Amino acid sequence: MTTPAIVDRDPIVVAIGSEGTSPVLTRQIKTQLEQSLPQSIGGLAALAGRLRPAVTRQVPRAKRRAFWAWVFKGAPRATWVRGAERDAARDIKAAIAAGGAPEAVTAGQISLVGAGPGARDLLTLRAVERLQEADVIFYDRLVDEDVLELARRDAERVFVGKHVGAHAWPQDRINGMIVAEAARGRRVVRLKSGDPGIFGRAGEEIEAARAAGIPVEVVPGGTAAAAAGACLGRSLTERGVANTLVLATGTGRADDPLPDATRLSGPGTTTALYMSVGQAGRLASDWLARGMPACSPTEICVDVSKPSERQISATLGTLAAEILAHGVTGCAVILVTWPEGVSAQVETALAG
Amino acid sequence: MTTPAIVDRDPIVVAIGSEGTSPVLTRQIKTQLEQSLPQSIGGLAALAGRLRPAVTRQVPRAKRRAFWAWVFKGAPRATWVRGAERDAARDIKAAIAAGGAPEAVTAGQISLVGAGPGARDLLTLRAVERLQEADVIFYDRLVDEDVLELARRDAERVFVGKHVGAHAWPQDRINGMIVAEAARGRRVVRLKSGDPGIFGRAGEEIEAARAAGIPVEVVPGGTAAAAAGACLGRSLTERGVANTLVLATGTGRADDPLPDATRLSGPGTTTALYMSVGQAGRLASDWLARGMPACSPTEICVDVSKPSERQISATLGTLAAEILAHGVTGCAVILVTWPEGVSAQVETALAG
Repeated sequence: MTTPAIVDRDPIVVAIGSEGTSPVLTRQIKTQLEQSLPQSIGGLAALAGRLRPAVTRQVPRAKRRAFWAWVFKGAPRATWVRGAERDAARDIKAAIAAGGAPEAVTAGQISLVGAGPGARDLLTLRAVERLQEADVIFYDRLVDEDVLELARRDAERVFVGKHVGAHAWPQDRINGMIVAEAARGRRVVRLKSGDPGIFGRAGEEIEAARAAGIPVEVVPGGTAAAAAGACLGRSLTERGVANTLVLATGTGRADDPLPDATRLSGPGTTTALYMSVGQAGRLASDWLARGMPACSPTEICVDVSKPSERQISATLGTLAAEILAHGVTGCAVILVTWPEGVSAQVETALAG
Repeated sequence: MTTPAIVDRDPIVVAIGSEGTSPVLTRQIKTQLEQSLPQSIGGLAALAGRLRPAVTRQVPRAKRRAFWAWVFKGAPRATWVRGAERDAARDIKAAIAAGGAPEAVTAGQISLVGAGPGARDLLTLRAVERLQEADVIFYDRLVDEDVLELARRDAERVFVGKHVGAHAWPQDRINGMIVAEAARGRRVVRLKSGDPGIFGRAGEEIEAARAAGIPVEVVPGGTAAAAAGACLGRSLTERGVANTLVLATGTGRADDPLPDATRLSGPGTTTALYMSVGQAGRLASDWLARGMPACSPTEICVDVSKPSERQISATLGTLAAEILAHGVTGCAVILVTWPEGVSAQVETALAG
C-alpha cells in the first residue's frame, strides 16, 4: 500500500508516494507523467551522462547551462524523440566539439498533427507531445479550442480557419506561413482535425515543406468515421454485413461534380461521407437509381465526439429529408451501409 | 548532483532523479508537477489517510475504488482545491456514512479500446485513461507489449491471441469472458489494435455485452492505413489524384473468396488492404484484368509505427513479386493508388 508508484525512464526515475493515504492520486500523477515523458527520453539522459565528462572538458563553464538546456529543450530532444537518435547524438557531439550549443537556434521543423475527431482526450500521446514542443501552432475552426489547452502556455497560436463572414486562408498562404516559420528555426505544428492524410489536404503542406528543405512529419490521428462508429456503438465493418469501408467526400458547393458514388458502394459496403451534407440528396438519388435499396441503414453523425454531438438515424430513402428536418448544416459524417446479400443489382445497372 | 528533485505536497511526495545525468530535465519535470499539483492537494490526501479506516469499515470492498476515484477526481477534489475544504470534508464523510460515493458507478462495464497502429505513443489519452482504470485487460498478439505498460500494475492481463503453434481463442469464448468479468462488477478493457470498428470484430463483442445488459463503449483509435500514410509522409486522399479511400481486407486463407475490391476501385481511389498479404497476388491479377494500370503506385507497409517498421515500394504489376522477394508474411497494410485520369477502363471491362 505504501510502495511508491514509479515512472521509469532509466536513468530518469520518478517516484510518487502518498504514505498510503491516496493511491488513486498517486496513480493519477503517474499517468500524467507517463503521458508527458516520452518513452525514449531516458536514452537521451543516458547519453547526456556519458557525454558529461567531455562537456566539462570542452564547453566553458559559462556556456554549460545553455548547452544542457539546448540538449533537453531544444532541437536535440525533438530530434531524439521523433526517433532520429543518431542524428541527435551527432548534433550534440558536434556542439561539444565546437565548445557550446549552436548560437542561433537550429533548423525548424513542421509536424502535421492529427487532432482526432474533436474531443480533447482523443488526441494521441504523440500529438500532445508535439503540441508541448511547438513554438507556433496553426489551427482552424475544425479543431476544438479545448485541444489547444494541451499546448505550452507560451506557444504562439495562429487561427487559419474561416472567421464568421470572412473567407478561410487560402491553402497556399498557409503553406507559405508554415514554411516561413520553420525556416526561422521554429518548431511548427499544423493541427488538423481527424487524420491529416484523410481529407486533410496534407499533401500540399508536405510538398511545400519538402520543396523548402524543411523536415516534415505526419502524426496520424483518429478519423471522424471511426469516432462516428464508436459513438453509435457499432462496427463499421462486420462479417456478413459489410466487409469494406469506403471514405468519400462531396465538396462544399452544390454545383460541384459528385464523387463517383456509384462505384463506391455495393452489397457488403459501408460508406462514410465526409463534408457531404450539401450533396447528400444528390448522392442518395444517384445510389437509388443504381440499385442501392432505399431501406439501407443510414446514420447522420453531427459534431462527433464533441459536447454538441448528435446522431440522426435514417435510411437511404429518407436521408435528404432528415437532413432538412433536423437542420443539419455543419460538420457531420454520414454512414450508409449496403448490407451484404441485399439485392445486388449494381452490376446489372452499370452494364445497362 | 545526484540528490533527487522533490515536489512536496505532504503526505504526497514526488522524487525525481536522473543519476546525475540530466539536472535540466529533472528541473523541467519538477516545474511541470509544481504547476499541475495544487498546493492544497496534500491536505486532501492527509484527510483521506485519516478517513481510510472508516472507509474500510463502512464502504463495501467492491465500491471502494469508485469511492476514492470520486474523492480524488470528482466533486470533493474540485471543492477542496477551490478552497471550500470544510464542504469537501463534509461531503466525503456523508458518502462514507451512506456506504459509497453518491454517483457511484460501481457496476461493471466493457470498453472496447482502440490501441492505434502499434506505437505506444499513438494511444489516445482516453485509451490510456481506460487502461489505468481497468481491472482486467484482454489483448491479443496485435497489441504491442509496450502498450500494456500504460495499465495499472495490478490490473489483470489476459492474452487471447494466438500462441505459437496454437489457435487463437474462438471469438465466442472471448465474448463470454469479457461479459462474465463485467458481470462480476469489474471494469473490463478489450484492447484492440487500430480502431475497434475497422476490421476489429467489435460487433460481436458489442452484441454480447448488450445481450447481457452490460454497459459497453467504444474508444476509437487510429487505424493502420492512416499510420501507413503518415510513415510514408503522404496523404491518402489528394485533390486531383485520389478523392476516395477504400479500406478492404482479404482473409487469411488462400482459398477464401476475395473481397470485392475490384468493383470499389477506379481512377481517383486509394485502396488500403488489411491482412491481405496472402491474397495480394490474386487481388492484383483481378485489378489488372479490370483495367487498373500495372504502373499504379503501390506501397507495402510492414509493422507500421513499430520499431520493426519497413516500407517497400512497388507497382500493382510488381506487388506479388515484391512481397515474395522481401519475405513479407505478417502484419502489413498495402496501399494501392489508381490515380485520377489514368485509363479509366473499368466500366468497359465490367460491361464486357
